Amino acid sequence: MPAEGRAASAQEPLPPGATIGILGGGQLGRMLAMAAARLGFRCHVYCPDPIGPAFDVSAEKTVAAYTDAAALEAFALAVDVVTYEFENVEIAAVEALSASVPVRPGAKALAISQDRLVEKTFLRDLGIATVDFAEVGGGVALEAAGIALGWPSILKTRRFGYDGKGQQVFNTGDDAGALFDAIGRAPAILEQWIGFEREVSIIAARSVSGEVVSYDLAENVHRRGVLRTSTVPAAVGAEIAAEAQRIAGKILGALDYVGVIGIEFFHVSDAVGGRLLVNEFAPRVHNSGHWSEDACSVSQFENHIRAIAGWPLGPTARHFDVVMTNLIGDDVAGWQSLAAEPGARLHLYGKREAREGRKMGHVNRLSPKSGPLA
Amino acid sequence: MPAEGRAASAQEPLPPGATIGILGGGQLGRMLAMAAARLGFRCHVYCPDPIGPAFDVSAEKTVAAYTDAAALEAFALAVDVVTYEFENVEIAAVEALSASVPVRPGAKALAISQDRLVEKTFLRDLGIATVDFAEVGGGVALEAAGIALGWPSILKTRRFGYDGKGQQVFNTGDDAGALFDAIGRAPAILEQWIGFEREVSIIAARSVSGEVVSYDLAENVHRRGVLRTSTVPAAVGAEIAAEAQRIAGKILGALDYVGVIGIEFFHVSDAVGGRLLVNEFAPRVHNSGHWSEDACSVSQFENHIRAIAGWPLGPTARHFDVVMTNLIGDDVAGWQSLAAEPGARLHLYGKREAREGRKMGHVNRLSPKSGPLA
Repeated sequence: MPAEGRAASAQEPLPPGATIGILGGGQLGRMLAMAAARLGFRCHVYCPDPIGPAFDVSAEKTVAAYTDAAALEAFALAVDVVTYEFENVEIAAVEALSASVPVRPGAKALAISQDRLVEKTFLRDLGIATVDFAEVGGGVALEAAGIALGWPSILKTRRFGYDGKGQQVFNTGDDAGALFDAIGRAPAILEQWIGFEREVSIIAARSVSGEVVSYDLAENVHRRGVLRTSTVPAAVGAEIAAEAQRIAGKILGALDYVGVIGIEFFHVSDAVGGRLLVNEFAPRVHNSGHWSEDACSVSQFENHIRAIAGWPLGPTARHFDVVMTNLIGDDVAGWQSLAAEPGARLHLYGKREAREGRKMGHVNRLSPKSGPLA
Repeated sequence: MPAEGRAASAQEPLPPGATIGILGGGQLGRMLAMAAARLGFRCHVYCPDPIGPAFDVSAEKTVAAYTDAAALEAFALAVDVVTYEFENVEIAAVEALSASVPVRPGAKALAISQDRLVEKTFLRDLGIATVDFAEVGGGVALEAAGIALGWPSILKTRRFGYDGKGQQVFNTGDDAGALFDAIGRAPAILEQWIGFEREVSIIAARSVSGEVVSYDLAENVHRRGVLRTSTVPAAVGAEIAAEAQRIAGKILGALDYVGVIGIEFFHVSDAVGGRLLVNEFAPRVHNSGHWSEDACSVSQFENHIRAIAGWPLGPTARHFDVVMTNLIGDDVAGWQSLAAEPGARLHLYGKREAREGRKMGHVNRLSPKSGPLA
């Protein structure tokens, strides 16, 4: 129990030497741990998988299930603040931890983002545009929702979907019952299919004091449901960028959020430069913000650590144009040519096995900063 | 023994997943370990002090004396390459390790840099200018050297001097015997006192294939023998900068060096823009290169890891003007105002006790890049 590192109250900034607890040991935890270490913090990573990439750069580790009450209690006593690197942390674990240590961003953002129906309802209630959607509780409800939203539409499980998993396209004439079987008859949501110009995302951060900052919009391309590239700046005008900032501020405020959030949008064209529909948000650092580590002085990782430690946020100004490319599965076999490419900043996660579809690293390709889009 | 990580020969680049061994667990080891992790390497830190700052960001650790033959042997078997973060590693340890694993930069650079007399003789033999110097083996030899070099001059122990320790000023009329007593009657060197314009340093790197790169010159200010600030660019002309690069290349080549080196110079003014005298070099990443982490895309730490891993070196282009200020002892108590200063990038080493004179961290203050000096 690092008593000297513990802040006197949850509102005071954590002093260097304090211990930051991270739930999850993947690459996001790894990059958070390194950002924390640069600011003089110790990290304690909690992860059920004994070879989580974050363990290699952390002072302390706990290998235990997220349902292990005794391990969670010991973890809470050993750290000064807790954060998480993925949104499917069990709410019960976060609530148990919250009894004795601040958990940032808290249980509310987590609970909302874990359920697509709750998330879209939350957004709609805030007056933020999303695609049309309807709850689906069975084949009959799916059929009715299809009639209401039109075909094609997308059937998604409400929970535990990521990287395109747990999704089915619902086309005219498809058997609703069979489709519902295909997603395991789990509680679901049907979303309107929308023709969009591009997918963009914003990385924003909110401090304990309510200060909000955001990074430039990234334009994202997915391949087989997994993010492939993020290009910054996105090819959108200043009004769209300002709209994304406004939406981010609204969401962060409504959640009384502390930390970095990633919000994904569809950019839909219309007569006046287009509009944004929120697709989803992730209450954590986000793959589409990895470019910030090389193109900005303060990365999304450092700003997340600053926020949860109660520090003021750092500048988000971008100094380069940048294309971030994920290295997925065997892509990492190209490390020798990437290591030799002068403008390519290579980030590898130390994962031992390059399984198909697994994010093994990413590369940020920098170029001189271009002017604003007209 | 991570067999899959071990390169087939010392000339092949180490693949990601390989383990880099670091002798020394201080802040330089800490920053090297983080640079290595970003490239997907595992680090194994060897340090006698169980609370070395580098341990907090390393996958594996050995806490043992540098004279512990069994621990060194186990370390050699557990890693794929060895480097060191300080120059007073015992040569015997490096030689023992070298029998079974590449040690970069090797024993030669270490042995030369450990002894001021050997170092200056090495430089003189390469035709590189230094201050005049003479060997001192006792009070009588010191008296004779003083007569030869003139007063004031500086008496320094040949070995284990750093941050101004083990040094005495030799003034006209001083009692040579008493002065020699004051440095513990250790083997010593007398160096001519020289009036210089400024101290500058260059950080250069050499790869396994013999490629050499260097960073822009830093201008250094010391306080009580300890580096206080490094300002980049240094206020010197292009010819001086080119001369520093030429000298660095000569030293690196003569040592068949692999890794980053820090070379300190006195810039002495004369009628034609001045000339450089080498003061000393450090066969490792160097405090006067810490600015590179925020002002360049590839820091001295990443380039050292690239070099010792047999990778091609990364670009050293500088994107900002920068002033690096060391946080020494109680300076670190100012962390809250530094954390709130927008242009200040804070780096803290996680040391638990802010003892007087101890380097606790540093801050890089960035500003837009200025043009070249006329």
